Amino acid sequence: MKIYLDNNATTRPADEVIAAMLTCLREKFGNPSSAHSFGEAALAVVNGARETAAEFLSCPPTRITFTGGGSEANNLAIMSAVAAHPEKRHIISSPVEHDSVLNPLAHLAARGYEVEMLSVDRQGGIDPEKLLKKIRPDTCLVSLMGANNETGVIWPVKEIGRICGERGALYHCDAVQMAGKIELRSDFCDYLVIAAHKLHGPKGVGLLCSGRRAPLTPMIHGGSQEHGRRAGTENVPAIAGMAAALTLAMNKRANDGIKGLRKRIEQKIKKEIPGVLIVAEARPRLPNTVNACFRHCSGAGIAQDLDSRGIAVSTRSACHSGDIDPSHVLAAMGIPEEYLHGSIRISLSRYNTEEEIDLFLKILKEITTRAAKNFIA
Amino acid sequence: MKIYLDNNATTRPADEVIAAMLTCLREKFGNPSSAHSFGEAALAVVNGARETAAEFLSCPPTRITFTGGGSEANNLAIMSAVAAHPEKRHIISSPVEHDSVLNPLAHLAARGYEVEMLSVDRQGGIDPEKLLKKIRPDTCLVSLMGANNETGVIWPVKEIGRICGERGALYHCDAVQMAGKIELRSDFCDYLVIAAHKLHGPKGVGLLCSGRRAPLTPMIHGGSQEHGRRAGTENVPAIAGMAAALTLAMNKRANDGIKGLRKRIEQKIKKEIPGVLIVAEARPRLPNTVNACFRHCSGAGIAQDLDSRGIAVSTRSACHSGDIDPSHVLAAMGIPEEYLHGSIRISLSRYNTEEEIDLFLKILKEITTRAAKNFIA
Repeated sequence: MKIYLDNNATTRPADEVIAAMLTCLREKFGNPSSAHSFGEAALAVVNGARETAAEFLSCPPTRITFTGGGSEANNLAIMSAVAAHPEKRHIISSPVEHDSVLNPLAHLAARGYEVEMLSVDRQGGIDPEKLLKKIRPDTCLVSLMGANNETGVIWPVKEIGRICGERGALYHCDAVQMAGKIELRSDFCDYLVIAAHKLHGPKGVGLLCSGRRAPLTPMIHGGSQEHGRRAGTENVPAIAGMAAALTLAMNKRANDGIKGLRKRIEQKIKKEIPGVLIVAEARPRLPNTVNACFRHCSGAGIAQDLDSRGIAVSTRSACHSGDIDPSHVLAAMGIPEEYLHGSIRISLSRYNTEEEIDLFLKILKEITTRAAKNFIA
Repeated sequence: MKIYLDNNATTRPADEVIAAMLTCLREKFGNPSSAHSFGEAALAVVNGARETAAEFLSCPPTRITFTGGGSEANNLAIMSAVAAHPEKRHIISSPVEHDSVLNPLAHLAARGYEVEMLSVDRQGGIDPEKLLKKIRPDTCLVSLMGANNETGVIWPVKEIGRICGERGALYHCDAVQMAGKIELRSDFCDYLVIAAHKLHGPKGVGLLCSGRRAPLTPMIHGGSQEHGRRAGTENVPAIAGMAAALTLAMNKRANDGIKGLRKRIEQKIKKEIPGVLIVAEARPRLPNTVNACFRHCSGAGIAQDLDSRGIAVSTRSACHSGDIDPSHVLAAMGIPEEYLHGSIRISLSRYNTEEEIDLFLKILKEITTRAAKNFIA
């Protein structure tokens, strides 16, 4: 029995998603730009998916630009925001963002932009008051995520949006981990990004939802697809799959079971395994994410032992798997050294079962007990 | 019965391609960056696909960068080539390139680059001697396609490559229409681009093959996927589908039937329909492409009538469907005015049958005969 508990890295595409993709691959394979019935059928799929995405985000369909994924959409948002006001050269972000935000910002910093990082507290929170003080007349962009991929900590996006709006800075929100896990609108920010594969949709497709005052500057030049915002033949099957995933996520009861599973994990871990820190336990967090740090343990070692028993968890963002340094997110939070290296991230999906969780907890206890013994010895 | 003869716009994914994708969607859904068995299985798919692509192009796997499609790959190649030598500001291209080449070049022209266009002759050819004369010490890039999407005309890529190599200009070849239709290596140029959906692979995936002296400058910043050349979780199912499509295309007999079908079309059209010009008839052309211009007819009208009978052809590149102006490719070739508006492009695939072609020809004759009568009346 294999147990997949790494759903913040990627998710298994839902059966409904695969079915929607298969219809496009087998039947509606036309080019949406073609002026014949094959093209029209494909265009109808893309238009329908755009309507679904708009419904999911409570916005008009014209705001939606489909991209090749979340990373492309984050880059497109950031580069568009800075291009919108070339005279403004100050950017605010945080040290716990995803690489697809941090690295475009590093690219801009190398080109003369001043990138200022808001610090996070021990519980992974940021202080909107500090943001308010940091925004300057030359701040072109505030890039702050909705919820953290490693800890699940949710930020006060509405308040951030209000502050950015008042101060006239464009607000980009990487909502990749929020979408499908908690309710999400798009009207609190100027640029909002989702990736389908984080909510049981396919890889290779994401979207950027951009507001009325948020211009887009294309990164890929060519045909006039996506209202001229992103050239290239639309990835019709993936876009259809994304729409199917968003439809499933709009079922308000879709994730009802997840919170109970998470509670079960946290209670049991705290009760049965000594020296555990549940990261940001008291903070609003995504219902599917547990980041547990085992004192004087190697998180990578625990994850590896779990893997050898068929259980997939991670120690951090998948992009950084294999790094030896501790997580940049936990380090920025100031997690104490004796816990910092012992972190594992357990991220659930609506397809996980109690049976899976109980087996995982049993094996985790065995592994951590042995690890602790080895440490003492 | 529906008949699809617009395979230069996009193709129906092969059954083998869909099967490869389904395996990834259902079973190998992990994130290739994840350090557990689910991730490793996905990574093995990507690595295997890279080996297949390398075999297809006769190059080492490290040269292959998977992208979100041909347009992205063309943009990546062009922007990388100009970034490689920032002091060189002269670019040579042609007026018959695809929009995903022409528009990045227009973007560069607006930023001070001098973009010079090689003229094409009445048969869609270019003159390598002219290229030789135009290359200057400050020429950073020669961007010339392998085969034209509208006419099928094949250019002497080896000779172009030799000239560029001798003169020290980077050569980008948009080989999107060549791949899968005629034999293709990658060693004649510095940057070579393929899109999977043009050869019975899936949409949403392409590749850039870059040579040893051809540096890449990422457009999408983030994780270290694709050797740091293109951030973002790999589109594993689409990459697997592309590899399956390339494998099918490596069967040297895959397209054996196509040339016969094209001959049948051209002979019959010329024999039975008066006032037809087969564009670039005497030139080396892709075996699947016929561009036929009907004198004093509306190509769009013919295509529409064919569509109403269930037959899909096009009048030009899908990106331009719906335009009223004549094709920029045929206009650049100097096709006479009385033929220019009467063009239809018939592009075949290995899945077309003689039966389909005969029915198409019968209906085409009816339509063009009626169109000619209407013109005379």
